[in-house]
Order: sequence, then structure tokens, then C-alpha cells
Amino acid sequence: MKLNQSKIVDCTIRDGGLVNNWDFSIEFVQKLYAGLNEAGVDYMEIGYKNSPKLLKGAEQAGPWRFLDDEFLRKVIPQKGFTKLSALVDIGRVDENDIPNRSESMIDLIRVACYIKDVDKALQLIQTFHDRGYETTLNIMALSNVMENELVEAFEMIKDSAVDIVYIVDSYGSLDHKDITFLVEKFQTHLPNKRLGIHAHNNLQLAFSNTLIASEKGVELLDASVYGMGRAAGNCPTELLVSQLKNTQYKLRPVLDVIEQLMIPLREKEEWGYIIPYMITGTLDEHPRSAMALRASDAKDKSVDFYDKLMTPEVTFDQK
Amino acid sequence: MKLNQSKIVDCTIRDGGLVNNWDFSIEFVQKLYAGLNEAGVDYMEIGYKNSPKLLKGAEQAGPWRFLDDEFLRKVIPQKGFTKLSALVDIGRVDENDIPNRSESMIDLIRVACYIKDVDKALQLIQTFHDRGYETTLNIMALSNVMENELVEAFEMIKDSAVDIVYIVDSYGSLDHKDITFLVEKFQTHLPNKRLGIHAHNNLQLAFSNTLIASEKGVELLDASVYGMGRAAGNCPTELLVSQLKNTQYKLRPVLDVIEQLMIPLREKEEWGYIIPYMITGTLDEHPRSAMALRASDAKDKSVDFYDKLMTPEVTFDQK
Repeated sequence: MKLNQSKIVDCTIRDGGLVNNWDFSIEFVQKLYAGLNEAGVDYMEIGYKNSPKLLKGAEQAGPWRFLDDEFLRKVIPQKGFTKLSALVDIGRVDENDIPNRSESMIDLIRVACYIKDVDKALQLIQTFHDRGYETTLNIMALSNVMENELVEAFEMIKDSAVDIVYIVDSYGSLDHKDITFLVEKFQTHLPNKRLGIHAHNNLQLAFSNTLIASEKGVELLDASVYGMGRAAGNCPTELLVSQLKNTQYKLRPVLDVIEQLMIPLREKEEWGYIIPYMITGTLDEHPRSAMALRASDAKDKSVDFYDKLMTPEVTFDQK
Repeated sequence: MKLNQSKIVDCTIRDGGLVNNWDFSIEFVQKLYAGLNEAGVDYMEIGYKNSPKLLKGAEQAGPWRFLDDEFLRKVIPQKGFTKLSALVDIGRVDENDIPNRSESMIDLIRVACYIKDVDKALQLIQTFHDRGYETTLNIMALSNVMENELVEAFEMIKDSAVDIVYIVDSYGSLDHKDITFLVEKFQTHLPNKRLGIHAHNNLQLAFSNTLIASEKGVELLDASVYGMGRAAGNCPTELLVSQLKNTQYKLRPVLDVIEQLMIPLREKEEWGYIIPYMITGTLDEHPRSAMALRASDAKDKSVDFYDKLMTPEVTFDQK
């Protein structure tokens, strides 16, 4: 049996925060960290490291939206095996807010961007790299990117400082053939870079796609406990922990996190395989229209919703 | 683009009946048939054709547990494109209750059995075949079958009358490598038989496994609307209809069935990706212990449940 060499990046707080506006208590995050650490999960993405002054509505969001090192030191006084990660968005981070890694709780900084902003992302990544962080570039919405744009991006990426490049299935629309195609393309064009995958579960393919990517050599696997994440959510951490052929992982602490934290939370907040998200997935588009539907009185009116998306002039208005 | 030649067998009533003791109204079944027919789904498995006199507790179950042709003719006065299928269990059917196909509403009779009963199943199948039905043999719990038993079964199957042989992942414990292995094994040993797949969703792999089997040439794909089926449920019909590259299928009528019938039903009955079912799936065992847990006050106590299953002497008692 070949042991699997992939690592798990648990995104429950960061991507799950998109569901509840980062309204996680400090105790919740502490228990989650303890559980992931005991389970042998490699990274915990504990939030966004954006700068509040660059974001509208910042005052309503929980502290995990704008991670502060002093605050983090109180939350996790003693780091264990599990490293900490933070995501930044292009144009929403002030480089001056990022200390050197030696003074920070964060080990890994990930920069998310659309294909047109890869140049800006790589500039930010150079800065984080110079300050000592591990770095990733997460190219979103790859299913809507044309070949020429992607090849142009590869040219910039291959000579950059970034450690790991992510394949992000933002709309949850890709199947195993698409994932295989993308992994092979990234491996061919970026032989000197390690790869990561971030999958969404609109078509119930997030876990399967992540497993298949892992078998093809993708190293960083994004997941979240009980799949918590925006709209249809992510690859479930508990499935990776139980199915990866890697003796490091333990399932029981993740089950404990689910029982203590996630089952009660799922009664208040909604994510997962829900038909409007399946519809946006199958149409290969952003779930925002489905999120608006689920927040309305017509939340289960999937047929009307589908009809609108299938009628271009109406779709245009609705978006 | 290569068009997919697989056919969908919707098992909502038959496998879903295991959830609600076949308590579907006639109107429910009529609306489901109309929707599947409009969607272009090839078969609807409308229940079991077991004989009530051979089954304990028969009087409590709905009529779909013991299909009767006279009754069926009232339910579906006019058959459309979608053919009808029924399942029988070994030892629970009286051959004298099965008329010739020319006098029956049923087109396809499927016989489910464990590996040790393949001989008995093939004998039944010969009878159904002689009476004019299409037939399948559904070998359950393949993940717990040793190679020598399987090869012995293949020897009997290859010279039998059965049209289609099913790969059944009863415990929802198989991944794409297992499915690939089994499909290739069945194709090698049974070159003269067509194949089918019945997957369960304990590890969120039912749809992915079914897609992969289909791409490898498996022809009959079992599914159910909104995944309704015992415990973790099945491959969702709506995902096959939307993702198979086959212009015959229409998603909208399936969405309508979900909106009208399945969303209200799911509020009363439980199936799907639920942690105790994930646990039995990852341990490759029957979900009966998890079903008992979900019917108890301790339904969300997954950690205790996991601990018991991981302690052999306790597990033995619980089963």
C-alpha cells in the first residue's frame, strides 16, 4: 500500500465564516483547533488576514475576518502540530499590517484571486515570501478561464516565489475528468511548483475530486469539518481523515468536533447539498443567485429559479 | 463528445420505501412516474414483488412492498416511455404470484441476493426469463466477498439466462478505485453480460462512483430522486440526469418532483449523509447499527457509537 503524502488544510473557520459572517466564539475556535490538532490535520485556516479599513461592513463581521496576531496569541496560547493559515484577497490587504513570520502566529498565507489578477497576487506573495511565510496562490473559478489566459498566468507563476498553486473549483461544477485534466495541465506547465485543490460540493463531487487530485500528486487538500462552507460547502474533513491512506490521521477527534460544535451549528446555519446550489453547479456559475434565493421566502422554489437561469435576459437582471 | 449510452433505473419508491415502510400515497407515485417519464428516465422501480404470505409484518407495509398487477394498472393506467421494474428477494417470493410479462405491468424483474445465494437467484431468474421479463441479478455487499466465492459465482452466472449483473455497494464503502477494479473484473469474467451499478452515499461517493462506472461501460445506473434510500441513500437521480452526456434526459421535471414531493417528505423522513452512516461506511459494514442509533435518543452521539464499533466485543453485542 502506498501511503498518501497529501496534507489537509481545514478551512472551517475561513470558508465557513462566509456562512455565518465569522460569528464563531473564541471557545468554538479553540475547541476546533484542539480537535484538528489531535486528529493530525496539517493546517487550520483560521480566517482572513484582510485589513478592516479596506472593506465595507467590516464592523459587523467576527474577528476571524481580520486576523490580528495579538488576538490570535490569546486564542491559541500554545500551538501544537497543526499550523495556522490565513487567506487574503487582492485589494483588501495592507501589506503594512503583515509582520514578519517570526513575530506572527500564522505559518501560511494564501492569496486568492481571479485569473486577471494573478500578477497582483504574485506581487503580494513575493512580499509574504520575503517576510518568511509559506505561500499559496489560489486561482478561483478555473472552470470559466480560457486556455490562453491560463497559459499566460503559468508563465508568470513559474518564475515567481510562490510555493503552492491551487486549483479552485469555485462553482462546484467540475467532475473527475476535469480535475484530471487540470492537474495534468498544471503539472506540465508548473513542474517546479507543488499543487493544491479547493473543491465545492454542489454536485456531491468535492470529496471524490479531492481524492482523485491527491492520487495524482496534489499535495494540499482543502476541506472543512462537516463540509461547512459557502453555499454547497466543501470537501468534508472527516472523509479525508478517514479515507486517506495516511496513518497520521485520527477520525475520532473530528467526530467529536462534529458532535460538539457542528451538529448544533448546522441547526442554525445552512450549507451543503441543496437543490438551488446543485443548479448553479450544473450551470457552472457563481452561487450568488442561489444564495439570494435561499435567503428569500421562495427558498424551495427550485423550478422557477431554474427557469430564470435558463432564460438569458432574466438571468442578466437577476445577477 | 461521446454520448453516454447508460440507462437510469430510478429506485425512489423501492429503496426509499425502506425509509418510510412504503408509505407513499398513490398520488405521490403517480406524480413521480409522470415526472420520471417526462425527464426521460428509462426505468422506475416501483417496489418489491415479494409475496406477503412469506414476510413477517407484511400487513403494516404500504402496497409497494407487494406489487399486484391489478393494483398497478389502476395506479398507472397509461404507461409512457419509462418502463417499470420490481425487485424480489430470495425466499420471499412465490413464483406462482408472477404472471407472464404479457399480462403484467412490469418489464424488468431484479433479484437481489448475497453471494451464497447466487444459485437460488439464478433459478428464479430462469423462471422470470421464461415468462418474458428482462432480468437482473443484484449481488449485494460485494465489499465483503472473497475472490474465490466471486469466481465461483461468475461460473454459474455466465451460462445463465440473466441479462444484466449488478455491482452493489451495499455499505457505501467503495471508492473509485474499488469500482474500477470490480467493473473490470466483472467485464473480464462475464464478457457476455451487461452490467449495472447500485451505489450508496455513506461517503458522498455514490454519484461519483456511478459516473465512473458508466464511463467504463456499465449500462444500468440505479439512482433515486434527492437520493432517497435506506440510511445514507443512493446516487441522486437529478445529478445523473443533469450530468450524463445524453440528450434524452431533462432536469426540469426532476426538479419539479423534488420541489413538490421530496422536499416536504424529507422534513418527515430522514436519509442522506449523516455521520453514523458515514461511520458504518468507513468501517465497511451494514448500516443497521447506525439506523438503530438514529431511531434512539442518542442519535447524534457519534463518538460513543464509533467507540462501540471500534471495540469488537461490544460491536458483537450491538449487532
